[in-house]
Amino acid sequence: MTDFSPCGVITLTTDFGLAEPFVGVMKGRILARFATARIIDLSHAIPAHQPGIAGFWLSRCFEDFPTGTVHVAVVDPGVGTDRGILCMAAQGHALLAPDNGLLACCAARCPEAQVVRLADAALAELGIRHVSATFHGRDIFAPVAAELAAGRVQPASLGGTPSAALGAMQRGVLGAVQSVAALAADGPRTAGGEVDGRVVTVDHFGNLITDIEAASIAGMVAPHALIGGRSLPVRRTYDDVQPGTLLALVNSFDLLEIAAGRASAAAALGVGPGARVSVRPAGAT
Amino acid sequence: MTDFSPCGVITLTTDFGLAEPFVGVMKGRILARFATARIIDLSHAIPAHQPGIAGFWLSRCFEDFPTGTVHVAVVDPGVGTDRGILCMAAQGHALLAPDNGLLACCAARCPEAQVVRLADAALAELGIRHVSATFHGRDIFAPVAAELAAGRVQPASLGGTPSAALGAMQRGVLGAVQSVAALAADGPRTAGGEVDGRVVTVDHFGNLITDIEAASIAGMVAPHALIGGRSLPVRRTYDDVQPGTLLALVNSFDLLEIAAGRASAAAALGVGPGARVSVRPAGAT
Amino acid sequence: MTDFSPCGVITLTTDFGLAEPFVGVMKGRILARFATARIIDLSHAIPAHQPGIAGFWLSRCFEDFPTGTVHVAVVDPGVGTDRGILCMAAQGHALLAPDNGLLACCAARCPEAQVVRLADAALAELGIRHVSATFHGRDIFAPVAAELAAGRVQPASLGGTPSAALGAMQRGVLGAVQSVAALAADGPRTAGGEVDGRVVTVDHFGNLITDIEAASIAGMVAPHALIGGRSLPVRRTYDDVQPGTLLALVNSFDLLEIAAGRASAAAALGVGPGARVSVRPAGAT
Repeated sequence: MTDFSPCGVITLTTDFGLAEPFVGVMKGRILARFATARIIDLSHAIPAHQPGIAGFWLSRCFEDFPTGTVHVAVVDPGVGTDRGILCMAAQGHALLAPDNGLLACCAARCPEAQVVRLADAALAELGIRHVSATFHGRDIFAPVAAELAAGRVQPASLGGTPSAALGAMQRGVLGAVQSVAALAADGPRTAGGEVDGRVVTVDHFGNLITDIEAASIAGMVAPHALIGGRSLPVRRTYDDVQPGTLLALVNSFDLLEIAAGRASAAAALGVGPGARVSVRPAGAT
Repeated sequence: MTDFSPCGVITLTTDFGLAEPFVGVMKGRILARFATARIIDLSHAIPAHQPGIAGFWLSRCFEDFPTGTVHVAVVDPGVGTDRGILCMAAQGHALLAPDNGLLACCAARCPEAQVVRLADAALAELGIRHVSATFHGRDIFAPVAAELAAGRVQPASLGGTPSAALGAMQRGVLGAVQSVAALAADGPRTAGGEVDGRVVTVDHFGNLITDIEAASIAGMVAPHALIGGRSLPVRRTYDDVQPGTLLALVNSFDLLEIAAGRASAAAALGVGPGARVSVRPAGAT
Repeated sequence: MTDFSPCGVITLTTDFGLAEPFVGVMKGRILARFATARIIDLSHAIPAHQPGIAGFWLSRCFEDFPTGTVHVAVVDPGVGTDRGILCMAAQGHALLAPDNGLLACCAARCPEAQVVRLADAALAELGIRHVSATFHGRDIFAPVAAELAAGRVQPASLGGTPSAALGAMQRGVLGAVQSVAALAADGPRTAGGEVDGRVVTVDHFGNLITDIEAASIAGMVAPHALIGGRSLPVRRTYDDVQPGTLLALVNSFDLLEIAAGRASAAAALGVGPGARVSVRPAGAT
């Protein structure tokens, strides 16, 4: 397994919310082991128990961080059961997540990634014992992330032998595949010059983010997005239309997005995650 | 008063929310005095004007941080009045909070803690003047925390003489005792092989967190929790039941919790903070 | 343009929310260029597409941070169009924001501030290319802030020549002046011993924050605030009234605020941003 050169940065992605101190407690446990960790929140508002959404976002932004970052993602309805915990090494980053499909999107985008399943012996070696049945974020993920970020353990040392799980993940069948992973499984299809996909998530502004990659519509002449009975030209910026007008565009994550000028496309269309979207050239019927 | 050896970490717990820059401003004032402070948010969503909930969480997690951490908690409806500000030294940590009952839970769990009431002279010594009547988080708590975390002042130096307040706090009568502190006062009772307590708070997942300590039900045979007319067996993990099914468990803070498999127990039961919960052995009537 | 001496601190103010990893991604890009940046969130809950509210808060608190802080504010409905990006040097701080009126409040409070419009050549010099049409927070603001905070570029070097925009901003006509800026334009007026202003924003506690400066009512005898048909005496602290009772006070940002004892003034009065407020001496009719 490739050597991991940590930079001291750790990101956190959870469905814990910020109302209770659960995230703060994870940070406390990280600092207790690695005092100079620089900890960045990616999101703590992943919909409860939907690891696929965490993995979707993580796959789209982990490379915005310095090489050597440790990314911890805890959306973990199976906490305390015999579901495993995975450590993936990809593009010089280390990713920690429950073995429940969360890492499927990352695996799909990084075919050369390597992954191990954390072995109890490795955890014991790090002094990780007395693990609760309900808060592995605090009891396992935080200390393991601290040790990785401090350079005191390598991803490869966390497991027994390199896992065969990666191939399975890339086929979308690892663990309890959920939401986005499931969407990905029957993901966007290109046929007859048309691309068919779905809305993955709705952002803070009411923009509908789809699973249709920019590359899949790059060659299309005057592409239009069909959603909710509307046909919307693909524009360049949010401000290319009048306020309130619907539009489609390729967003900054290289995905097709349905938006509205200074307004919520989700509200205007009355659609949400899972809604079908097609892109076809102007004039196609 | 015991010497405090700061580690440079400061945690913040408030009812300020994150929509306005109030928390950011506190951090700015901290950094202006102590440039290398590492500041961690515990929660800024404490219910407005309920110091007891802040103290409840703080008491359950301040020891997850490195020894030498300064914990600042500002839930302070009496800001600008003559209510005092306390500094508690407990387990190698320093805790700063208004004298309104917020620290009662911490005192109850740390009998050997020591506490002083901040003296105006000590604040003047630190150059803390021009204090507003409405934002002591910015004007007093932030600079005092910075000075403590930087090792430039000791808790004992902040007050005149060690306060007699601690004994009072441990009896639950310090300041304006509120919510959790009040619950604690008539807290869980054990009688006839049954433990009776209450729901303290509802977390992000809809789990009902009670004031019943794990230790108080540890010896019970096949314990069941009674709440909202239901009798729920005490399980080990959230996933020990089918999705949607109610259960009880001992959570990672060593408290009895009522949960539901991948769903909200609060919604399923229609109960919230203050609701009564009992635990008794299976078969008891 | 005055030399800027960075202290390594960067603040972020956006309308991005925290549900998606947009803010985290900006931090990743900052750390990728400047590994030891200390990044503080001011607010990510600015109402969508209302740069004036971001500027209002920024103008009231940027000086709470150490001199040499870089403040990044991205409320940017015109992202990807030919709207410019400004860098303002004020009081030893650097402020980065879209040229859409966001900085108007800061300019109004800092008459000696200097401002440049970011030149494409300067961005290219910093290796900022491949800019998306929809996420300049990640693609331009984050790297420029990192370079400023690292001391590798000066504000003056970011533009061609010092902009003439400042004078325009101080007259409130720069860019697409919105919300607060618009309010400021026809801002508070003093006439006949009475001051007339408006509610700018409602905070987390339901307090109504107005644009009436403390100084403008400082000499008034027994001032009362008129709002929503009520006449409220100006008190000193939130706790100077019984719970639930409405009051006015001068808040910690030196602005008149309408509050209620341990309750929401916004709910009690049924008013929000834009509502008119007057202050006059007791007995005036």
